Amino acid sequence: MKITGIRERSVTLASKMRNASIDFSKMTASVVAVTTDAVRGGKPVTGYGIGSNGRYAQGGILRERLIPRVMEADAADLLDETGENFDPAKILAQMMLNEKPGGHGDRAVACAVIDMAMWDIVAKLAEQPLWRIIADRFNGGAHDDRVLVYPGGGYYYPGKGLAPLQDEMRGYLDKGYRVVKMKVGGADLDTDLRRIDAVLAVVGDGSNLAVDANGRFSLEDAIAFGKAVESYGLFWFEEPGDPLDYALQAELAQHYPGAMATGENLFSRQDALNLIRHGGMRPDRDWIQIDPALAYGFSEYLHIDAMLTAHGWDRRRQIPHGGHQLGFNMAAGMQLGGSESYPLVFQPWGGFADNVDIVDGYARPHDTPGIGIELKSAVYRELKTLAAA
Amino acid sequence: MKITGIRERSVTLASKMRNASIDFSKMTASVVAVTTDAVRGGKPVTGYGIGSNGRYAQGGILRERLIPRVMEADAADLLDETGENFDPAKILAQMMLNEKPGGHGDRAVACAVIDMAMWDIVAKLAEQPLWRIIADRFNGGAHDDRVLVYPGGGYYYPGKGLAPLQDEMRGYLDKGYRVVKMKVGGADLDTDLRRIDAVLAVVGDGSNLAVDANGRFSLEDAIAFGKAVESYGLFWFEEPGDPLDYALQAELAQHYPGAMATGENLFSRQDALNLIRHGGMRPDRDWIQIDPALAYGFSEYLHIDAMLTAHGWDRRRQIPHGGHQLGFNMAAGMQLGGSESYPLVFQPWGGFADNVDIVDGYARPHDTPGIGIELKSAVYRELKTLAAA
Repeated sequence: MKITGIRERSVTLASKMRNASIDFSKMTASVVAVTTDAVRGGKPVTGYGIGSNGRYAQGGILRERLIPRVMEADAADLLDETGENFDPAKILAQMMLNEKPGGHGDRAVACAVIDMAMWDIVAKLAEQPLWRIIADRFNGGAHDDRVLVYPGGGYYYPGKGLAPLQDEMRGYLDKGYRVVKMKVGGADLDTDLRRIDAVLAVVGDGSNLAVDANGRFSLEDAIAFGKAVESYGLFWFEEPGDPLDYALQAELAQHYPGAMATGENLFSRQDALNLIRHGGMRPDRDWIQIDPALAYGFSEYLHIDAMLTAHGWDRRRQIPHGGHQLGFNMAAGMQLGGSESYPLVFQPWGGFADNVDIVDGYARPHDTPGIGIELKSAVYRELKTLAAA
Repeated sequence: MKITGIRERSVTLASKMRNASIDFSKMTASVVAVTTDAVRGGKPVTGYGIGSNGRYAQGGILRERLIPRVMEADAADLLDETGENFDPAKILAQMMLNEKPGGHGDRAVACAVIDMAMWDIVAKLAEQPLWRIIADRFNGGAHDDRVLVYPGGGYYYPGKGLAPLQDEMRGYLDKGYRVVKMKVGGADLDTDLRRIDAVLAVVGDGSNLAVDANGRFSLEDAIAFGKAVESYGLFWFEEPGDPLDYALQAELAQHYPGAMATGENLFSRQDALNLIRHGGMRPDRDWIQIDPALAYGFSEYLHIDAMLTAHGWDRRRQIPHGGHQLGFNMAAGMQLGGSESYPLVFQPWGGFADNVDIVDGYARPHDTPGIGIELKSAVYRELKTLAAA
């Protein structure tokens, strides 16, 4: 059994929206199709990986470093101990051959896309949905039949006033979401407070609203913002300062008693460990948002999960960033706190299965083998052409 | 005045050597040529950038993200306040447009190559060697007429015994070097101690020998190694553990009283600040080795230098990694502790000018405008073809 090919393509995630840190006018992501000579249901098994948003496509690293290393490996060295399935950890190790430590950035994003495809293959070979594989292997067989999902939304758009922002949030509630998220830090404090008030008028209690500063605030700005919103009891205050400024995060925790969340721009177990060691995150209320589709994949996430557990963090405090089906499978199979979701933005790549029902803010996992990419028709149409390329 | 083109190419740094972390069998780097419509001596001014070693070529990021952003900018927005020269900081900001915070890896390497070319241009437009520009702008006009240089060497090669290692070190001394560096951590402790003893038999006192573990050791291994070599009084013990494991570094400082050095795998001012905040580095004896040609360039390094100074670090404790002419210019112009040097490895890209004289372990800065790349004939031959491509 072997990998017969790995094909990659850059796809556009471009839109007119922006957060406090960047605009998405030229945003791209890498997608991959990993073909194998294994057969299920009379057809060769193919796995798909879709890059998460925010860090651009990684075609150069994929073509020049990662794909050749995997294709040059002895096929038997990439299988698990049964010899009947692949071992994604071994494939990740092969991708990282002769890569120096540290500097976890674009390389982590590139590895993650292939790792996602490998986990899709693992589940397809076992003829199980990925969340069930995860539950059996890493959660003693237990899983959740419904997963908390929240839409990453409330971006800034040119000329967008309060009424369209309220319409967007009403749309999420109409779809079945309870907790919504909006961007902050991309306008002055007064403007942001008016935006927050407008959204609260739609979603009701502050516990239904998370806000995300995308790393924009200085410590002083973060403290001022925190004081201004403290009484709302928000679901969380996300990525207040530079994601690597652990001291800022720790100091802010002395000023803001509400829940905080961060992690989407930490791309390795060592970076995550530094957050836990130095960032003053509070296991009784804060949230960890490492994105497996940006950070070397689910294979690396397992080490991050083990580290968090060893430091006394409950898995319910993990909510992966990215709004992708990998995060959703992980949330169901590991019984995490939930998963981000993109019902409106980053289309067609954002969002879950076409037919997914959101009820009271929760979504049910799928029944088909793999990650479930085939259940998202617009995405699957494009990925099929990549596999056949 | 404007940039008329940015061309990039991947070049090979491949060799059979390895350190404790990787082998260099497929090592590559990006080189760039930035052409302008400015004229000096009757010819258009071209700047050159050469990627440092260890993190591979970055053609994808250069072609897809960085170069288009620079070429799409309004030319006037890239000039300094005089309008008669470029402002590399503005060009770096343009390269980083719509890049999220955190994740400082391959992107930092790609930015650094173009930033190097821009500083080459700045100096050529001023018709000065770069070290003099640096001295005038950032060091009150003072500079060093000689720079401490040490060869990064002593790599592991297949089948290489002690005698060839000693021959290599003798070769460095014959060239005029005093302090040499060798790799450790790629063999068991006994083997490494025999290698160290063999080199000390050549270079004499331990103060002439630095050792580099390339991030390979666990805390326990690093403590054990430190105890084994403590009595030698080595010049430094470099990158003992994972470069992002600041707690390991801080704990090791409680066990190893000798000098330590690290930083080549930290790629931003925030990562460097974390090392200073959390890594227990000792300003009275340790060394900071950030590589400007891997970490967003000299434009970013200026912020790192300011941060180090604000935290009480003398500039003499900085010795940039990478063995390139940029680091050498910085060492001379900012009066740093010195610069790494690659007289033998990474050829033809390693090393300084063809005619550079090393005397008592020091080298003299050049007199020609720019970084001095034209003084290295094999490199300049290849870069000229890139500029004309």
